[in-house]
Amino acid sequence: MKALVGPDTHSSDGDGHGSEESGLCVKKMTDCQEGEGAKTPMELYERLSVQGDKVRSLKTAKAEKAEIDSAIQLLLKLKTDYKQVTGQDYKAGCPPSENMNVSDNGPAADGTGDEDSVDPWNVSTTNAKGVDYDKLIVRFGSTKIEKDLVDRIEKVSGQKPHRFLRRGIFFSHRDMHQVLDAYEKNKSFYLYTGRGPSSEAMHVGHLIPFIFTKWLQDVFDIPLVIQMTDDEKYLWKDLTLEECHRFTLENAKDIIACGFDVNKTFIFSDLEYMGASPEFYRNVVKIQKHVTFNQVKGIFGFTDSDCIGKICFPAIQAAPSFSNSFPQIFGGRKDVQCLIPCAIDQDPYFRMTRDVAPRIGYPKPALLHSTFFPALQGAQTKMSASDVNSSIFLTDTPKQIKNKINKHAFSGGKDTVEEHRKYGGNPEVDVSFMYLTFFLEDDEQLEKIRQDYSSGAILTGELKKILIETLQPMIAQHQERRKQVNEEIVKQFMTPRPLNFNL
Amino acid sequence: MKALVGPDTHSSDGDGHGSEESGLCVKKMTDCQEGEGAKTPMELYERLSVQGDKVRSLKTAKAEKAEIDSAIQLLLKLKTDYKQVTGQDYKAGCPPSENMNVSDNGPAADGTGDEDSVDPWNVSTTNAKGVDYDKLIVRFGSTKIEKDLVDRIEKVSGQKPHRFLRRGIFFSHRDMHQVLDAYEKNKSFYLYTGRGPSSEAMHVGHLIPFIFTKWLQDVFDIPLVIQMTDDEKYLWKDLTLEECHRFTLENAKDIIACGFDVNKTFIFSDLEYMGASPEFYRNVVKIQKHVTFNQVKGIFGFTDSDCIGKICFPAIQAAPSFSNSFPQIFGGRKDVQCLIPCAIDQDPYFRMTRDVAPRIGYPKPALLHSTFFPALQGAQTKMSASDVNSSIFLTDTPKQIKNKINKHAFSGGKDTVEEHRKYGGNPEVDVSFMYLTFFLEDDEQLEKIRQDYSSGAILTGELKKILIETLQPMIAQHQERRKQVNEEIVKQFMTPRPLNFNL
Repeated sequence: MKALVGPDTHSSDGDGHGSEESGLCVKKMTDCQEGEGAKTPMELYERLSVQGDKVRSLKTAKAEKAEIDSAIQLLLKLKTDYKQVTGQDYKAGCPPSENMNVSDNGPAADGTGDEDSVDPWNVSTTNAKGVDYDKLIVRFGSTKIEKDLVDRIEKVSGQKPHRFLRRGIFFSHRDMHQVLDAYEKNKSFYLYTGRGPSSEAMHVGHLIPFIFTKWLQDVFDIPLVIQMTDDEKYLWKDLTLEECHRFTLENAKDIIACGFDVNKTFIFSDLEYMGASPEFYRNVVKIQKHVTFNQVKGIFGFTDSDCIGKICFPAIQAAPSFSNSFPQIFGGRKDVQCLIPCAIDQDPYFRMTRDVAPRIGYPKPALLHSTFFPALQGAQTKMSASDVNSSIFLTDTPKQIKNKINKHAFSGGKDTVEEHRKYGGNPEVDVSFMYLTFFLEDDEQLEKIRQDYSSGAILTGELKKILIETLQPMIAQHQERRKQVNEEIVKQFMTPRPLNFNL
Repeated sequence: MKALVGPDTHSSDGDGHGSEESGLCVKKMTDCQEGEGAKTPMELYERLSVQGDKVRSLKTAKAEKAEIDSAIQLLLKLKTDYKQVTGQDYKAGCPPSENMNVSDNGPAADGTGDEDSVDPWNVSTTNAKGVDYDKLIVRFGSTKIEKDLVDRIEKVSGQKPHRFLRRGIFFSHRDMHQVLDAYEKNKSFYLYTGRGPSSEAMHVGHLIPFIFTKWLQDVFDIPLVIQMTDDEKYLWKDLTLEECHRFTLENAKDIIACGFDVNKTFIFSDLEYMGASPEFYRNVVKIQKHVTFNQVKGIFGFTDSDCIGKICFPAIQAAPSFSNSFPQIFGGRKDVQCLIPCAIDQDPYFRMTRDVAPRIGYPKPALLHSTFFPALQGAQTKMSASDVNSSIFLTDTPKQIKNKINKHAFSGGKDTVEEHRKYGGNPEVDVSFMYLTFFLEDDEQLEKIRQDYSSGAILTGELKKILIETLQPMIAQHQERRKQVNEEIVKQFMTPRPLNFNL
């Protein structure tokens, strides 16, 4: 299996390497719906971990030899099973990787082996169309954004819904109706989103949540807080605190270049804001008192070998969901509802947050979840910051954009022009078409492209040309706006201060 | 077994109830030197925990019935063993308590069952003379303070050593010679101590580290930072953040009343200072990156059921050991050596700190360890904030002091006057005499009392009278000084600011 990466907001890993680089054991979401008696690689891995712990524990406790021996025998048997199923040797601390050779008679009797894997550090699927989002909604327990909700957002905001809503790019939610109910009764809310600054380089996919959040801020006229989790990147990556903080400031420029209003937006670095707000730390401690290691183990797949920084970090991503973490904005009010637009891989953090909220007397944050942005090579491949050809970066020149798309964008077209004209292309797996659904504003034009590509009326080269001509000016404009963002403006956005709201 | 409590500095639990109230599983220090094949209650408990995890894990993984059944049978057998050895039912998350009825044929074949138990949340011994500190030094791997070190401190400081040094109340150290070497070469150091503010009530024992730290500050003329771990008390106790913070401010008054110089002393609340110093948080995150859950499990006995706040707290007690946590005092220098005077139950925090320090480029803190302050009822009984008669409180009236000592101070005297005159009393178990070793300044007078009590020349009542007449003015003077400490003075001490040093 190959991996597809989420858009790296709320600290999802930009290059999709999180779990490999950090050695972090990521619990597959498939565990939530286990097959009957099926022994998947992950199940075997978990039983091996437990058995290994047991053997060590028996030795430490100087148990009787017979007991130790029998425990070791079971351990060896499980190791053999593991090797048989996965084709790899069991290694403590290294969960089965996604591209291992799963034997045919192993798992998946019930189809669970085909399930996508989605969590804050890794997203993977075998499907060229990408992750099966309908299944994900069922697994995560969120709610699909149906047409009635899109219509309602249009009615309440008085604005045409953003193309991300019209096209199901934001496809899932939690409590959005409740947010709108309150808004209709003049009870306002605030927006919270974020980014894990793991490198200077941001690609177009990283902008998705910010483009959408900017639209939400504009149509609802509400405060926005943006968390830069530089502490998280320090904990997970082989980076210094200084590097992580520098990436924060650089990434903040790209975020600001999306057009946010400085009077309505507070961008903060964890490394700075934690040390600048006793109220923020108080909420972190409150959350940390109400979440056990067992819980974060279940939600995030942490192990005993993980550093304690990782183990307590989820509380730091949770805290901005509560309005009294920002007394300078909300004047100490703890009841202002929070709405979090983010890629769905970040949902585990906020499931935890929503679980804790009522126990510490705060409202649960509402969520709007987006799909993942595909790599140029296809929806089932991995975007990587170290592979400049895996996506369009915000620093790419028009020529680089043209070359990357022409060379690397996975095509849904047929092998020959003749076949393509006859049978048509497949827009569902064509990355150029996917990118257009993200960035081409005109619905009718997009639909015509889809039809013409499906019918074979336009060729892959022509489709790519449309994408190139869409992205070149978009990126150029972004670069132009980013140039205007100097250190002073970044500082303004990142200074804790009141915003222009009377809450 | 009954418990004796430490002096509640550096967040040791004032009333010795930590492990009971919090459900915290505290790893007995005896585990460091395990007996051959002995099954102590703690060993059985740990094997039961592992086996319970295993059964749950097998069920979750839908293992084969036979395998689950066999795991359950072993679990039941271990439970029976546990009940036999401890006289209590096994309960997950509740480690064997110190006062359980350990059966005679259970542990201790090699004597380990007689060992004292000492960690930040609980201290217990069966010995009326108190904990065996020589054994503790071996177990903790620290160094005994011998006469040569006391002499050297006298020589370097040019002052008569404090009675706590002369009498072995501060009895153990780490790297104190290195601190003195550097000091002789004009390389200064700073002091760090603390308190866990679990209630308004402080007793005389709580003052021990502060009395000694004040003396160190006076003779070496160095900066001092005092940490109030209100976040820790919130995490461990059934208290609100507001209560913990209020206790911080009240306890700070008692600490200030010990006579600290505001120009040389910074007192800080974690709940305040974490949100006021990005540098402090940076050090916390650095430490948290370099300590795993396995490590804190081993050092502090945390379990998977503990909240993530507890699991990451040790980093917060470690951070003040590094001078760049206080840029306002040390101007960003990270190489100023730290010396920590504390009760030895706090040593686990600083063993961890010393382990991490070189890996993050900081000097290891040095330590001076004190013995524990005994309860009135005897060195093997428990001091409790809820039992006002277990110690002399700083708020006690002269009459209360007199009554408590006369009524409750455990006597090493004989049953009748005649016997006492004939055989003499035992100062080694007599609490009044122990208290005098802490508080009577005159060595010759103390020695004479010891001899006269041992010989039977003075009776218990006379000994108690000497203690009463020592404590009454001491407490009255403390109360007088505390009255002078108003909110404004507390605020001065607790404001992050430069101190009067040129470092």
